[in-house]
Amino acid sequence: MKKHHLRIPGPTEVPERVLRAMQSPMINHRGDEFRSLFRRVSENIKKVFQTKNDVLIFPSAGTGAMEAAIANLFSPGDLIVSFSCGVFGDRFADIAEAFGARVERISVEWGKPVACDIVKERILRDAKGEIKGVLFTHNETSTGVLNDIRALREAMGDHPALVVVDAISSLGAVELKADEWQIDAVVAGSQKALMLPPGLGFVSVSEKAWKAAEQSKMPKYYWDFKKARKTLEKGETPYTPAVSQIFALDEALNLILEEGLENIIARHRLLAAALREGLKHLGFRLFAEDSWASPTVTAVDITDFQGKINFSKALKDRFNITVAGGQEKLKGKIMRIGHVGYVDELDILNVLSALEMVLGEEELFGKGVKAAEKVFKKGEEE
Amino acid sequence: MKKHHLRIPGPTEVPERVLRAMQSPMINHRGDEFRSLFRRVSENIKKVFQTKNDVLIFPSAGTGAMEAAIANLFSPGDLIVSFSCGVFGDRFADIAEAFGARVERISVEWGKPVACDIVKERILRDAKGEIKGVLFTHNETSTGVLNDIRALREAMGDHPALVVVDAISSLGAVELKADEWQIDAVVAGSQKALMLPPGLGFVSVSEKAWKAAEQSKMPKYYWDFKKARKTLEKGETPYTPAVSQIFALDEALNLILEEGLENIIARHRLLAAALREGLKHLGFRLFAEDSWASPTVTAVDITDFQGKINFSKALKDRFNITVAGGQEKLKGKIMRIGHVGYVDELDILNVLSALEMVLGEEELFGKGVKAAEKVFKKGEEE
Repeated sequence: MKKHHLRIPGPTEVPERVLRAMQSPMINHRGDEFRSLFRRVSENIKKVFQTKNDVLIFPSAGTGAMEAAIANLFSPGDLIVSFSCGVFGDRFADIAEAFGARVERISVEWGKPVACDIVKERILRDAKGEIKGVLFTHNETSTGVLNDIRALREAMGDHPALVVVDAISSLGAVELKADEWQIDAVVAGSQKALMLPPGLGFVSVSEKAWKAAEQSKMPKYYWDFKKARKTLEKGETPYTPAVSQIFALDEALNLILEEGLENIIARHRLLAAALREGLKHLGFRLFAEDSWASPTVTAVDITDFQGKINFSKALKDRFNITVAGGQEKLKGKIMRIGHVGYVDELDILNVLSALEMVLGEEELFGKGVKAAEKVFKKGEEE
Repeated sequence: MKKHHLRIPGPTEVPERVLRAMQSPMINHRGDEFRSLFRRVSENIKKVFQTKNDVLIFPSAGTGAMEAAIANLFSPGDLIVSFSCGVFGDRFADIAEAFGARVERISVEWGKPVACDIVKERILRDAKGEIKGVLFTHNETSTGVLNDIRALREAMGDHPALVVVDAISSLGAVELKADEWQIDAVVAGSQKALMLPPGLGFVSVSEKAWKAAEQSKMPKYYWDFKKARKTLEKGETPYTPAVSQIFALDEALNLILEEGLENIIARHRLLAAALREGLKHLGFRLFAEDSWASPTVTAVDITDFQGKINFSKALKDRFNITVAGGQEKLKGKIMRIGHVGYVDELDILNVLSALEMVLGEEELFGKGVKAAEKVFKKGEEE
């Protein structure tokens, strides 16, 4: 008998309170009970986005919400510059291209973040103001890299392009101030820091983005922001909402507001720091440097162990801990340990103990745990 | 945000599959669906008791099942010898006394088990065969001591007294062969190794015990074994059964039979050994010696820390781990760490990590975990 520990970067574990909320009896999605519920979650979710603007909620995967942002804010032929440092940055560019935008892809080496300089350089070259949109990934889940969105946005100065940020694997776990940092659309999903099962997509829409939405000529029906805003005024959705997920969102937002967004952000930072310190003491090389490492997912270089230890399989078989592998060109080269959402200190110590035993060398036993405990002790004292 | 870890010696954590089973819609307890369910659990539970005889199931606490055994097997004035090494041994004697038995209490020092010699000596003195019953506690939850029931039973030889064993905190986690060892009544509860919420009591009844039940003159109505056996033949219970608990029992028995009783027993032995080794390496003195230590609960001497560290409070506040304190004369002197039922290796490593941090000395960080990991490694290799 081994309890299941889900240490992938999403879907993440769902708190018991949220699971219970999902068992609420089904209600009429065009009735008062739903309207009051939907109004409440639509207000509360704004606190997580740190915005006063509308946040639209769709029954969809995170990728659907990315598509919604593109389809509503741009027109075919628009020049969109995509800054990518991994699989999910590339995906954002693919979506824009599929909808007929003229996409200019600026990619950086995987494992590194997007540098402010290259953003500044590209923006300065746009004397005619041709660029209509800029796409960033906040947290690149495929490489465990966090982009400094605040600095990247500042690097753009007062260029009029819309700034669209994929914050699917960061929002609610990492600082992201949609309004203060002037992000026109922030995209999020339910299955990461929001601690819900997958199935809800979120997009915040700035005033500037609403103006762009008026002009947008990309084809859309399901994702139509204007219809979503119009029905939201009545506390409803254009098409059938995912009712049980909305019950769950309501309870997850209660949990988030009870703990406090600042505390949650600090928790994720501490968990990541302790895990990284523990991993280093076990001799692992980390794929991303400390200064831009993700607070929600840690990519571990496993090339030294190829043909010797299959970590994913060993952690699963021996301890029922599920971690993620590498994607695309990183397949077999990294393992990714998720620590986003419903995760605490003991979860981190667990994964380190389990790795110590999977490595199997007695001189490593307790070594990663010790290093992590020191980080937690320091965190507690601060 | 800290996940809750329940490390008391019961109620224990309830597996997700069992929690889900409890959510089955209510059914008629006098209908075919319930009858087939109740017949199935009444058969499957026999495998855990290692008996071919009936196991009766009552909606009750474990103490209720203890009372049921006394009230059905004896008559007022019967001489019952109670061998006690702690709170729960004493309780068994109290119950027999409350029902008018002549109880002879033989108590041993808390922290030690009942020795075969004192049983043998008392039995040999009973030349006239006056003793009608002997009460043993298999696992004394208050001190973390396991009595060697097989040896104690053997020490009685062919004395005709009924042997009644309180196995509430052991059955399903520690070897106990009701038939082979000739135990006339084994008492169990739902909230320990059976991994259910509290609320069900169990008693196995040997052929000899059924004969005694025919003669018993102690007052009983709710606990009446004969009524229970009669209704069980129809797949029913005399009074309203705890239907949701029976759904849960059905699923818990599935889990137990899937893992296999032998494997479960080995798991508990290994978890206890690893925890004890880890605790010793952190400098703790253990209340019971290794040779008679309980596989389901470990009592830790905390007298050295009085006025310095309140472990229960610190583990709860800092890590949301709930452990138990001492009872009666052991209050404030021991803490008890439960590891019964739905518990795995990472749970043990968790509690050791947490204690390392609560102790707070950096030279202890990772030390208990390391010692426990070594035990697990050895267990894996065997």
